[in-house]
Amino acid sequence: MYEFKLGNKTLFLKDDSQNPTYSYKDRASNLVSAFAKENKITTIATASTGNAGSSLAGICASQGQQAIIFVPASAPKAKLTQIMMYGATLVPVEGTYDDCFELSIAASKQFGWYNRNTAYNPLTIEGKKTASYEIFTDMHKQAPDFIFVPVGDGVIISGIYRGFEDLLKLGIINKIPTIVAVQSAGSSNLVGNLGSNQPQFSASNTIADSIAVDVPRNYYMAKKFLEKYEGKGVIVKDSEILEAASDLSQNYGLFTEPASAAAYAGYQKYAGKFGFPKNSKIVIQLTGSGLKDLDAVKSISKFPRAIKPKLNEVEKFLEERKK
Amino acid sequence: MYEFKLGNKTLFLKDDSQNPTYSYKDRASNLVSAFAKENKITTIATASTGNAGSSLAGICASQGQQAIIFVPASAPKAKLTQIMMYGATLVPVEGTYDDCFELSIAASKQFGWYNRNTAYNPLTIEGKKTASYEIFTDMHKQAPDFIFVPVGDGVIISGIYRGFEDLLKLGIINKIPTIVAVQSAGSSNLVGNLGSNQPQFSASNTIADSIAVDVPRNYYMAKKFLEKYEGKGVIVKDSEILEAASDLSQNYGLFTEPASAAAYAGYQKYAGKFGFPKNSKIVIQLTGSGLKDLDAVKSISKFPRAIKPKLNEVEKFLEERKK
Repeated sequence: MYEFKLGNKTLFLKDDSQNPTYSYKDRASNLVSAFAKENKITTIATASTGNAGSSLAGICASQGQQAIIFVPASAPKAKLTQIMMYGATLVPVEGTYDDCFELSIAASKQFGWYNRNTAYNPLTIEGKKTASYEIFTDMHKQAPDFIFVPVGDGVIISGIYRGFEDLLKLGIINKIPTIVAVQSAGSSNLVGNLGSNQPQFSASNTIADSIAVDVPRNYYMAKKFLEKYEGKGVIVKDSEILEAASDLSQNYGLFTEPASAAAYAGYQKYAGKFGFPKNSKIVIQLTGSGLKDLDAVKSISKFPRAIKPKLNEVEKFLEERKK
Repeated sequence: MYEFKLGNKTLFLKDDSQNPTYSYKDRASNLVSAFAKENKITTIATASTGNAGSSLAGICASQGQQAIIFVPASAPKAKLTQIMMYGATLVPVEGTYDDCFELSIAASKQFGWYNRNTAYNPLTIEGKKTASYEIFTDMHKQAPDFIFVPVGDGVIISGIYRGFEDLLKLGIINKIPTIVAVQSAGSSNLVGNLGSNQPQFSASNTIADSIAVDVPRNYYMAKKFLEKYEGKGVIVKDSEILEAASDLSQNYGLFTEPASAAAYAGYQKYAGKFGFPKNSKIVIQLTGSGLKDLDAVKSISKFPRAIKPKLNEVEKFLEERKK
């Protein structure tokens, strides 16, 4: 976790790209893999937009287990390459994440595999709650005032709530932080339904592939947590996500994937709309590495022309940039 | 660091891809950036095959400093994207790393920038020696018997020697580990010249871009350390590097860049040739993430065909794989 003083508030960037497979998903995969090991299960399947799959593939590889990963064929190349390199069985599906979800459950039942699907397997939330304990520890045994979390299926945010709820029930903290669910405008089926009893789900379309889901699989639990603890919701556009990716990289030296940038964009939007009380301690949960989806930032990172290795060429190059 | 028991030896995989910019180079960039800050220097330049550049760019971004990065135009796309995202000035050069090296020094003198070049700036070795302290700490205050290090310029290996030399001089350890320099057959200008007083340098050509250098800039220091402490050298082919990348991913769940895989290939080669004494403790130094160079593993990670989201299609897919 990185700490930055900004005027009278403090920003904490919790960087989960530094897990073994470079995403938050390792927290859940570890627990699922350990449970399987204890129960002598050797094959684990999952549906994934890419991160859960590359995570499960990596963790299974280290534990001598077989992983079978269903992904939309359009998932980012880096995540697919990771899955292949770890020696997992990659099943690219002509369809959405939601198609992969249903298919992986049907196939798990048919072939007797253990299924890791996010929200389907209850251990995923148990694994994901460890972030709360770490945030608390990283902050020298205090809870932050706000946490911004990128939301797709709603499992990470539920896990974070559950972790802080544990700390509350144990009397270690005395209130739950204000947790802000951030979704992409192209996939806002949780935040868009907050306050409504008749949820409407529409098809997703966003550059933030990690949080692109049509039907949030942990909808009811995430919504219940947000309502119980007065959490908030923010929706950000793809253009705001890209700008946030650029801000995060240029101001904090953190190159993150679009889903993480969405959380940061949500923080910026929230700050503009509502502001924060003085001396607020704010955590932004970053979920994966920018190296996992280079195409997402193609439009904002055009390479300059190459020069010949001559000093006067450097001079010309620098002058051109000034214009 | 990850620990694996293998028969009567223990393998420790030291994973530097979990640094803020996903490579070993952050150890040096941090110190150079801190020195610049203390001395009110705001612009830092470097030549790089990609990792040193993306590292300096990221660290400078977090510190409000300007970075100017000279890279061969052929450097991996992920590293170039990182440099751009961090807001550094990227100068792609039509030439080799060695051309970039000379050009960056000439330009630094001309324009008054501080230069971070590996081996040129003495702080790079000081920063890089921190890995030795960490290895010692990770191993609960003992030194390993062997360390395999991927070698390009020779700065990382010199840094690791210097770190253990510090521990030796302080009486904290009583012998320097056997350090094995691993180079690619396509860029073996240090190992190839061990034992010779008339070094021959030839042009580099290897998939391990991070250790592709024509003239090792820290040649004499690295050679002196290897000779003084009876270090060894191993040369591995690109095909062995690819196979090692696959082994590391599939057996340990670590997807690393080719330079790291080279170190592991060197370990395998050394094991086959000389073996290890019983109960040896062996460290493999991994220097960067596999996400940084996806093209390198293209030939060994071909994606399977996509299927329609139907259970019978899964069945067919699995049967085809068996053949």
